[in-house]
Amino acid sequence: MAEQYTALEVAINTLVKNFHSASSTDADTLTAQEFQSMISKELPTMVTTAGDQEGLNKLLADLNVEEGKGVTFTDFWGLVDSLATTQFGLQSNEKQVKCVKCSLM
Amino acid sequence: MAEQYTALEVAINTLVKNFHSASSTDADTLTAQEFQSMISKELPTMVTTAGDQEGLNKLLADLNVEEGKGVTFTDFWGLVDSLATTQFGLQSNEKQVKCVKCSLM
Repeated sequence: MAEQYTALEVAINTLVKNFHSASSTDADTLTAQEFQSMISKELPTMVTTAGDQEGLNKLLADLNVEEGKGVTFTDFWGLVDSLATTQFGLQSNEKQVKCVKCSLM
Repeated sequence: MAEQYTALEVAINTLVKNFHSASSTDADTLTAQEFQSMISKELPTMVTTAGDQEGLNKLLADLNVEEGKGVTFTDFWGLVDSLATTQFGLQSNEKQVKCVKCSLM
């Protein structure tokens, strides 16, 4: 039935499904290790700093995850939000560069 | 170069690109009409209430967009956040239903 959905709807579902499938126990929160494994597998280009324990700890602290607590969907969403906002800024800049190029031509 | 990216990274990019391409003037905010057009084209299954002016006004109010102001990426992200959280709840419920079924078998 996937062909019913638009690219945007599929994208939202992909984000949710990735979080769900990262839990080995079908839980609603991920352990820090499950979260780290998901990031290195699914976000290798966008998040390059969480490969070691120190980087992971910093990322979890940035997302306000308390030490020893599970990573909730809301925590994960904070990361997605920050990545999307960065991408939005990058793409806005690209457009501006294009506009400057246009006006110079 | 798209094959370098994982499904999750493509999903984040899709969300950002959809917002960018919805602007006819390459602006960083959308007019209410551009926003409505994007929603009816790209989110027809997930957002069914914004087809008429009343529904659109209610949605914009829910996203805290002031009357007459443009829709920013942050406003749009508020909608995506709410849709993803709903999807997360639905998929969690499905898992619970499956678990109950399992334990009954």
